[in-house]
Amino acid sequence: MVGDGLAPRGANWTALSPLDFLDRSADVYPGKVAVVHDARKLTYAELRERARRLAGLLQELRVGRGEVVSVLAPNVPEMLEAHFGVPLAGAILNAINTRLDPPAVAGILAHAEARAFIVHASLLPVAEAALNQLETRPKLVVIGADQPARAGGLDYDEALAAATPTPWQGPADEWDSIALNYTSGTTGNPKGALYHHRGAYLNALGNVITFGLRPDSVYLWTLPMFHCNGWTYPWAVTAVGARHICLPQIGPARIFQLIQEHRVTHLCAAPVVLTMLIHAPEAKSVRFEHGPVEIATGGAAPPSAVIEAMERMGFRLTHLYGMTECYGPSTGCAPQEAWAGLKLEERGLLMARQGVRNLTMQAQTVLDTTTGQPVPADGQTLGELAVRGNTVMKGYFKNPAETDRALADGWLHTGDLAVLHPDGYVEVKDRAKDIIISGGENISSLEVEEVLYRHPAIMEAAVVAKPDEKWGETPCAFVTLRPDAGEVSAQDVIAFCRANLAHYKCPRTVVFGTLPKTSTGKIQKFELREQARALG
Amino acid sequence: MVGDGLAPRGANWTALSPLDFLDRSADVYPGKVAVVHDARKLTYAELRERARRLAGLLQELRVGRGEVVSVLAPNVPEMLEAHFGVPLAGAILNAINTRLDPPAVAGILAHAEARAFIVHASLLPVAEAALNQLETRPKLVVIGADQPARAGGLDYDEALAAATPTPWQGPADEWDSIALNYTSGTTGNPKGALYHHRGAYLNALGNVITFGLRPDSVYLWTLPMFHCNGWTYPWAVTAVGARHICLPQIGPARIFQLIQEHRVTHLCAAPVVLTMLIHAPEAKSVRFEHGPVEIATGGAAPPSAVIEAMERMGFRLTHLYGMTECYGPSTGCAPQEAWAGLKLEERGLLMARQGVRNLTMQAQTVLDTTTGQPVPADGQTLGELAVRGNTVMKGYFKNPAETDRALADGWLHTGDLAVLHPDGYVEVKDRAKDIIISGGENISSLEVEEVLYRHPAIMEAAVVAKPDEKWGETPCAFVTLRPDAGEVSAQDVIAFCRANLAHYKCPRTVVFGTLPKTSTGKIQKFELREQARALG
Repeated sequence: MVGDGLAPRGANWTALSPLDFLDRSADVYPGKVAVVHDARKLTYAELRERARRLAGLLQELRVGRGEVVSVLAPNVPEMLEAHFGVPLAGAILNAINTRLDPPAVAGILAHAEARAFIVHASLLPVAEAALNQLETRPKLVVIGADQPARAGGLDYDEALAAATPTPWQGPADEWDSIALNYTSGTTGNPKGALYHHRGAYLNALGNVITFGLRPDSVYLWTLPMFHCNGWTYPWAVTAVGARHICLPQIGPARIFQLIQEHRVTHLCAAPVVLTMLIHAPEAKSVRFEHGPVEIATGGAAPPSAVIEAMERMGFRLTHLYGMTECYGPSTGCAPQEAWAGLKLEERGLLMARQGVRNLTMQAQTVLDTTTGQPVPADGQTLGELAVRGNTVMKGYFKNPAETDRALADGWLHTGDLAVLHPDGYVEVKDRAKDIIISGGENISSLEVEEVLYRHPAIMEAAVVAKPDEKWGETPCAFVTLRPDAGEVSAQDVIAFCRANLAHYKCPRTVVFGTLPKTSTGKIQKFELREQARALG
Repeated sequence: MVGDGLAPRGANWTALSPLDFLDRSADVYPGKVAVVHDARKLTYAELRERARRLAGLLQELRVGRGEVVSVLAPNVPEMLEAHFGVPLAGAILNAINTRLDPPAVAGILAHAEARAFIVHASLLPVAEAALNQLETRPKLVVIGADQPARAGGLDYDEALAAATPTPWQGPADEWDSIALNYTSGTTGNPKGALYHHRGAYLNALGNVITFGLRPDSVYLWTLPMFHCNGWTYPWAVTAVGARHICLPQIGPARIFQLIQEHRVTHLCAAPVVLTMLIHAPEAKSVRFEHGPVEIATGGAAPPSAVIEAMERMGFRLTHLYGMTECYGPSTGCAPQEAWAGLKLEERGLLMARQGVRNLTMQAQTVLDTTTGQPVPADGQTLGELAVRGNTVMKGYFKNPAETDRALADGWLHTGDLAVLHPDGYVEVKDRAKDIIISGGENISSLEVEEVLYRHPAIMEAAVVAKPDEKWGETPCAFVTLRPDAGEVSAQDVIAFCRANLAHYKCPRTVVFGTLPKTSTGKIQKFELREQARALG
């Protein structure tokens, strides 16, 4: 039967694409509010219509199949429209980090060979400065600007009104590219990770299942949509016909207000947002009445104190791990029945691990950096975290060398150092380059940071290597104190660490102040390393 | 960028297959109880181990890749094992309806060219009689039989214990076949619908989302697993690491007991099971305390009285539509927010419709049977329901003519006559061949049956055409009265219909008695048509 003569045909094969999600939800829930932004509301029928007009506009602007449309915008409805309208035109969506400076934006536009550039009025100064650095300019479309301020670009709304809606049509090939996301990274040149329709479709369905999205869910856009296409949630939330609540600028008071007003059920946020929420003045009185609010966070592991404070307000925290190269989350800390009965401290330690592969990722392992073989599941042996599956990027755009390096030997190599616990959960110990080697011993900067975060006066902390004549390197801590913290000395901090850590792991130096961050909110360790080196 | 040079590779492409679901759940939830059958329990780690051993056994029995393994068994754990172990061996699972007689079973074994035949001891007499009709016998493996009763077959448990577990490995091609299901149909020769790994994977994920399965869900196996592979729920429930509760023989008391004992959250059942539940003596006192129990039903539309009685007990009913040719459900009656406020009667009418395409089905339409064009969405114009997408079968095994007919012009033609409502929901009015043409008017037998079901004394009803000299055909009703019904005459029934239907649609003849059913519980209308014809 191997040759059963039954080849794919029109009735039984179609290219997987998240485009289909909006078409279905607009058919099934045409009058349902799909998107809310302040007083503005769009139904699912309207969202589809606007996406069709955007596609029509791009085709009229002669954006060809497989060409790039860049977007520089915060979390506004037009950004959601772009997630459907751009691929509907057969083009590739390149959402650019809004915190980048003009040279970085210009570098991305040039590398991506963007044919059109959709810019929110609030970011027009950056966009204009970037465009001025380019030899070949993409066609400019401006969202929400008055005529004089449009910098020669089309007005988004006027252009949409005049455009002919494109008929709804998925890609011919599910391997076609749908998005191009430049990694901010913490060092080095940005690289453009290409996503295909198949991976976006599968990752979105995986997110729906992992996060428990349903037609009556309400999703708050605290996570920037330019960040790995909002971890594919623009497509996932739409897949089930749930509601998007747009939030262009985050602040604790506004977040609490929107959660209560719209009975928000789900949101994703970087750890820094969690810290912001629990330290907000409103946090003490917040208690959501409409049931637990699911919040997914990725990046640094949430310390127990954060878990506790979030749960007190009515959040239920899920810890995820991922990167731009795998459509956002690849890994999640799936809770086990038995954990519910544990004390917070114990549960916190288990929840702080990155966890297991997501449903739509095929495999995850920790590879010995020398032998390339999986490390033992002993919770001790460090290796490089690697994943494999349909939700790994196609590769880096116009960068075969980096593609081959990242996707060598059948794995996406994450560059993160991790251990594999006996229960199969991985725990990231550090970025490969963030490990501190002191007297021949490996010290995980994350482990030291975890202890620092437990100090009652410390709000944020980062630990890097400081060159040392005797030890090679020693840990150097940079800390930001809580606003209400009293007098705290370096000796206090070091003593606290010595009470909670092996002595060789404790910082020898403590620097107080604010921490430098990347455009995506990650602490810039390379800058701290330079500061530490300068300390001499 | 059309040619970006980024071809699929090991790190970022893997064939979609539901096999992966068990591998992941056994990794993530190794100690969790996956399957319960009476006092017997299997953890996810054990379920994977047994599937691996089954695959090893089949390979030792020299079942080749792409060859068929038939299984004749009720809903026991071994049937779940077969859903993973058979495809893990590279073979195709052919689950045979346990209600078939020996010649029908023999016909399937011969047509499928089965290489192995796994039979539950309780069905050994049928299996032996079937095997005696075959020239080439498949290798026999018997579940749960004492030695003398094994008919020369291997003992399943002994053979598994002796087998070498196969390493876990998905298919190389997601288009490879995973299952072969012979349609019972209500007339004509059985046809073998072939499913591929891609479709099974997608349909299972779609079911998880539509039915809201979560890791803490508990699924009761009231639906036979031989029926379209249990609508792909063996894979769907496993995908999220939920729990399977096996139920080899259904009866209301046992169903109520298992729901309460295991805090069942989800089950699927044919309409006849719903009727059985609401008429059971226990029904009056049943009230589930652990939250609504989701129950999906497909086949005939549930009348309002059934919806009401089910809801009173604590069930929440979802009405689905599907067929063997599309992995079970293709269509579901997605509830709308506004329906919650409606009176039961109105809500019942809306819920009785088959609804909208499922998330993983690409398109659904109703085609004019003459022009092949979509009918207007007026709720009136009859046409043939058609669906298209990745969850439509590859085709019929060794039957290119029927394959071409069923999958012509880019659609799976269901053979069901339906209307398209203005809100995009389809409503099936009849099987194409079940329509009654009286005096040139089309009469939907379903419409008449719906009225009959509302009669307080009627438990089951079916309406077919009876030849008539004057009118061509007239409706003839076959009804089964409720056990507690008093005296009811044909005139009473006809009068009830005339009070609720256009007169030309009312039955001219009423026959009392039990209704003949197919092996899957469908009423055999072709037999009733013959009876009606014989009435003269």
